[in-house]
Amino acid sequence: MSGFFITFEGGEGAGKTTILQAIATRLTDRGYDVITTREPGGIKISEKIRDIIHDPDHTEMEERTEALLYAAARRQHLVEKVLPALEQGKIILCDRFIDSSLAYQGYARGLGIDEVLSINQFVIGDCMPDLTLFFDITPKKGLERIAANKDRERNRLDLENLGFHEMVYEGYQILKDKFPNRIQTIDADQSMDLVERAVLDRIINFIK
Amino acid sequence: MSGFFITFEGGEGAGKTTILQAIATRLTDRGYDVITTREPGGIKISEKIRDIIHDPDHTEMEERTEALLYAAARRQHLVEKVLPALEQGKIILCDRFIDSSLAYQGYARGLGIDEVLSINQFVIGDCMPDLTLFFDITPKKGLERIAANKDRERNRLDLENLGFHEMVYEGYQILKDKFPNRIQTIDADQSMDLVERAVLDRIINFIK
Repeated sequence: MSGFFITFEGGEGAGKTTILQAIATRLTDRGYDVITTREPGGIKISEKIRDIIHDPDHTEMEERTEALLYAAARRQHLVEKVLPALEQGKIILCDRFIDSSLAYQGYARGLGIDEVLSINQFVIGDCMPDLTLFFDITPKKGLERIAANKDRERNRLDLENLGFHEMVYEGYQILKDKFPNRIQTIDADQSMDLVERAVLDRIINFIK
Repeated sequence: MSGFFITFEGGEGAGKTTILQAIATRLTDRGYDVITTREPGGIKISEKIRDIIHDPDHTEMEERTEALLYAAARRQHLVEKVLPALEQGKIILCDRFIDSSLAYQGYARGLGIDEVLSINQFVIGDCMPDLTLFFDITPKKGLERIAANKDRERNRLDLENLGFHEMVYEGYQILKDKFPNRIQTIDADQSMDLVERAVLDRIINFIK
């Protein structure tokens, strides 16, 4: 494994997805071999699983089912896309990974962080991210950003209320304490230019 | 929980599915309140997961992904269909359940019976079947039956070779030793009438 596996984490409306693409361009311009991907999804089978998870009609979906579907999508994506890219020495920028399961299903849904972690050990073995950037913005501000963006597609998780998103935020705080060496915090409550610069600095420092 | 949860298990071509419907009719005629269902599937979300698992185009599906998709389909099916029916005191006849995961993914795919069992403990808690009937027929004969049945839809698992199905059969033998009180064997290598009578006898004896 000679590449770097870097994951972007945070609540809704934190700007992860936009910044991830900008950073990929910056790193590529500097000569790095970069791929971008996302969870759940990134490859055919996992995108089909994503469709089931996100379908707003699936209001009956139970929280353990949801956790297992994320786990299934993660496994296939890891094996088909992440591991081969790591072996080729690439930098993988991935929009969400294991911490989303721990914060959303483990903490906010109440399944237990350790229980969801144990399912995920079946999924990823010892392939934890090398670096995780947590995009820090209050759930209220994040949801306001989403509400202002009319182009954004609404999925099943966007139907959750502010209380749920506050639980997700709390979950991430616990994860920062649990994995202090891996998870670094980015202040996402500033202009996109400043967030982009902060993210680029952290990544360059990490991989150089 | 005042109902009975009865699962039908075995390799391909063992006659489970046909017999299950016949038994449901017999039990209903005798005044029992019976529902029939199947795994993976049985309800909307789980049928969509089934489609992903069975799609013959998904040759790249990795074995842990497969095990997690079965687990997700099982959880939703259990919560939406099996548990409510049990609470209503019904007899549930279910075509495949946890033992299929243990024999196919745990043993034949080589993930390990105990490892797949541990994932499934997250899925079912303490809701193991009350009675499991293992339809015993050699894989060779089972596959010959399937080949002779031109109406049967071929799925991704039907593409596996005889060696795989022999491993599944071995897996079920191990499960019979592991769960001797729950799993009872039915000789499926006889006429459908005789199999049906044997199954009916076992179930009536169990529930009366």
